[in-house]
Amino acid sequence: MSALNEPTAAGSGPRLQARRIGIDTWRENVVYLRRDCPLVRAEGFQALAKVEVAANGRTILAMLNVVDDERLLGERELGLSEESWAQLAVAEGAPVAVRHAEPPPSMWALKRKIAGERLAGPEFAAIVRDIAAHRYSKIELAAFVVATDQFALDRDEVLYLTQAMAGVGQRLEWPQQPVVDKHCIGGIPGNRTSMLIVPIVAAHGMLIPKTSSRAITSPAGTADTMDVLAEVELPFERLREIVSEHHGCLAWGGRAALSPADDVLISVERPLSIDSPGQMVASILSKKLAAGSTHLVLDIPLGPTAKVRSMVQAQRLKKLFEYVARHVGLTLDVVITDGRQPVGRGIGPRLEARDVMQVLHGEANAPADLRNKALRLAGRVLEFDPDLRGGDGFALARDILDSGRARLTMAAIVEAQGARGFDWRNPPLAAMTHEVAAATSGVVTAIDCERLSRIARLAGAPNAAGAGVDLLRKIGDPVACGEPLYRIHADTATELHFAREVATRASGFRVGEIAGAERSAEFAPEF
Amino acid sequence: MSALNEPTAAGSGPRLQARRIGIDTWRENVVYLRRDCPLVRAEGFQALAKVEVAANGRTILAMLNVVDDERLLGERELGLSEESWAQLAVAEGAPVAVRHAEPPPSMWALKRKIAGERLAGPEFAAIVRDIAAHRYSKIELAAFVVATDQFALDRDEVLYLTQAMAGVGQRLEWPQQPVVDKHCIGGIPGNRTSMLIVPIVAAHGMLIPKTSSRAITSPAGTADTMDVLAEVELPFERLREIVSEHHGCLAWGGRAALSPADDVLISVERPLSIDSPGQMVASILSKKLAAGSTHLVLDIPLGPTAKVRSMVQAQRLKKLFEYVARHVGLTLDVVITDGRQPVGRGIGPRLEARDVMQVLHGEANAPADLRNKALRLAGRVLEFDPDLRGGDGFALARDILDSGRARLTMAAIVEAQGARGFDWRNPPLAAMTHEVAAATSGVVTAIDCERLSRIARLAGAPNAAGAGVDLLRKIGDPVACGEPLYRIHADTATELHFAREVATRASGFRVGEIAGAERSAEFAPEF
Repeated sequence: MSALNEPTAAGSGPRLQARRIGIDTWRENVVYLRRDCPLVRAEGFQALAKVEVAANGRTILAMLNVVDDERLLGERELGLSEESWAQLAVAEGAPVAVRHAEPPPSMWALKRKIAGERLAGPEFAAIVRDIAAHRYSKIELAAFVVATDQFALDRDEVLYLTQAMAGVGQRLEWPQQPVVDKHCIGGIPGNRTSMLIVPIVAAHGMLIPKTSSRAITSPAGTADTMDVLAEVELPFERLREIVSEHHGCLAWGGRAALSPADDVLISVERPLSIDSPGQMVASILSKKLAAGSTHLVLDIPLGPTAKVRSMVQAQRLKKLFEYVARHVGLTLDVVITDGRQPVGRGIGPRLEARDVMQVLHGEANAPADLRNKALRLAGRVLEFDPDLRGGDGFALARDILDSGRARLTMAAIVEAQGARGFDWRNPPLAAMTHEVAAATSGVVTAIDCERLSRIARLAGAPNAAGAGVDLLRKIGDPVACGEPLYRIHADTATELHFAREVATRASGFRVGEIAGAERSAEFAPEF
Repeated sequence: MSALNEPTAAGSGPRLQARRIGIDTWRENVVYLRRDCPLVRAEGFQALAKVEVAANGRTILAMLNVVDDERLLGERELGLSEESWAQLAVAEGAPVAVRHAEPPPSMWALKRKIAGERLAGPEFAAIVRDIAAHRYSKIELAAFVVATDQFALDRDEVLYLTQAMAGVGQRLEWPQQPVVDKHCIGGIPGNRTSMLIVPIVAAHGMLIPKTSSRAITSPAGTADTMDVLAEVELPFERLREIVSEHHGCLAWGGRAALSPADDVLISVERPLSIDSPGQMVASILSKKLAAGSTHLVLDIPLGPTAKVRSMVQAQRLKKLFEYVARHVGLTLDVVITDGRQPVGRGIGPRLEARDVMQVLHGEANAPADLRNKALRLAGRVLEFDPDLRGGDGFALARDILDSGRARLTMAAIVEAQGARGFDWRNPPLAAMTHEVAAATSGVVTAIDCERLSRIARLAGAPNAAGAGVDLLRKIGDPVACGEPLYRIHADTATELHFAREVATRASGFRVGEIAGAERSAEFAPEF
């Protein structure tokens, strides 16, 4: 069918004008047409039809919403949601052509996967290309995510998916090898080890150009916390300079450049809370490949409220990561760690930045668990250095930290990225506070990671950088009835109220006998 | 968390005002909030978050779109798409409360199904209840549809799903038994046998209160075609009166009353073009149960461009229908029919109504295939009469038709429902026409049902009742190069152009040697 802004044989092909409609449809292209638009009847468009919109030689696919309200849109106008407006990049009022979309080229492969068949490399490549080009609707994305969930992908399919996802984005290149990295699969509040590992490893002279994400469902991502100390949105050329001078950086990975398909898939995985092993492996490893990493230490926290809740599950995930990493040429060291509780004290960008700076400065009251975990992981990264003997990494990491070299390297990186002048000794925390107290006396036996994350988010983190939760007790600490377990920080009374209400219903802490804090038989991570 | 229009502990819970936003989001509840709405920040809402909206004691779930444009919405307003506006049923400006939605109660069951587990009756009931109550997002619906596609449901699960779907809607009751029905799984253009079967069976005195759907993806549904002759949207009490007097009716089944969950599921099955056996069986049989049917003749057309394309597939589908029907207490007779080409000549509401009337009136040039198929199916329905000997149905149906009794019964039903005065001898067809001619001489060996449907829809059917395709040749007919194969009718030049362009690319007809028209070995339907 010809595009509609070309003259048609019938001579009556209607032209439409582009109009920006300021609606954020979160990664899904939506366009709006009036029900009485001549084109809607001519093409037999119905709401949720998939249409192809062309202008300026650029083409996007979008879902159609039919508009009945003439205040929203003229009958010869095509409304574009923010996402589709950004992608089509036309001027207000520019002529646009709309027609029924042909199905995305990979639809046959998607249907095979839905039917439970095994796909090969080229099929995953076709699917991922379409996803990255925003040719899948939300419904098709959900279909793909469900059809590849759980046991639906064998390990070779996970490999193909990883390669396909790494193949569609940008790929960073660095002047020196190895390029090392450290990644955590997530789910544990606090846990800002990257901001300690990067300066330690960089101080040793290894290249660790760390790009991180901002929080999606958590109260803070590494990029949000680093943002407290320094600028994190830097052009790639500037990052190269910083890395070449200081061997490391801590930057935001960008919304989509490194793994555009992953960015799209997250928009449906998140609402379905699907995080299957295959998708997790493909998502993480494809981004590391795109970032130019050659060596990776991967942290899998294990605990009753972590993402991975049994050692069997952790081992299975570890083997899948190892299989795919080997076949894409990435040297991988997987570490299963203690994920029974948040790491460090603060939950929220400024609170976590404070913890990191306390450790870097060797403060007496710095959170010991954060320091210890960062040193152990940094040690594993350092052991990628062929000159280092296996097992010597921890001691070297500790020397680098305790000598102040890590602190100096961090200061240099912060300076190079653009320091914000964060006063970690008197951090500007959100001013409205509420302390949640223990209802009985005893020992803290469990802390619910999911609950604490939720409370910190309700308090305003990560958007309100000074908001969140400050933990005053950790597992094993004694507490008397009425003594505070943690302090909630919020900028507004409303936010404080929401967080407090959820904390009041269930604090996320269990206080009991000392015996209760013992590790279960199943649970024996490395640290 | 408390609803936000209640005073909160902090005393600052913002109130929002409802505002109708005339956007048709096709069965999905969407609500709009300004990015600078105090609530968006307070609750940490992001686009595509699922929210619960309460007003007037009524609660709906909806997906959130975040609005950046202040012309669309005030910062203290909540915009409601047409679907959510209809469901919430508040006045413009009424106070509404919005909060993060708790996941639908059946989410655990959905996750189990996504994980490939087998569900039991109560779990299907929970899922279907949530679907019918619009508690699933489009993404969750897609997840359910994919997780239950293909071989993902065993036959007992199909039974549970059928029972669950029948359980959530209205249920019609009739004063007499048996209540018979006839249904086709669809996919064949034309094929308006119900409009012949109903008067034949009703003339015999059996109760056949037929409710049909309007077209979703086809160029005409039975309800669209009956709408040419008579009113089809009647209150149930009026239908009861008509059925009690004339033993039959031909009415629209209503958008959702009989099977609200089915109505919602279609909104994602359609864009994914998923029509798996299990979902088809549950959808059809649940609606028949809800409509109060006790006996059903089911037509499965078999052909290379039909929904069912091999005898093995047809037999498997037949057995699944039979298994579920037996366990829900429905007497079922499945007939596999010839689906190699459209049935009758017309494709489109008025063209099809014309065909039906020609058969009812015993016109010499009435389409013989439509007459023959309707008589055979009507015969099978009549044989539900315990007084009829097996095999005598066809002859009885023919007697009823040829004696004019079916015609009189149809006239009485049309009169009772509200006659439209359709002049079937000179039907008001769409005035702009184009004839598609054979490119070679020979015999018609194949007609592509999907292609002809698409052409008829592009020409305007079913919205333009006089538009569509009039077939001038059928399989086995000789045709000379340049002679017309079919005529396209459209109301507008644009529509005619679109239909013609697709027909020019490929007419949907194959013209070849006589041998090519023979049936393949695999293909041997009953008729």
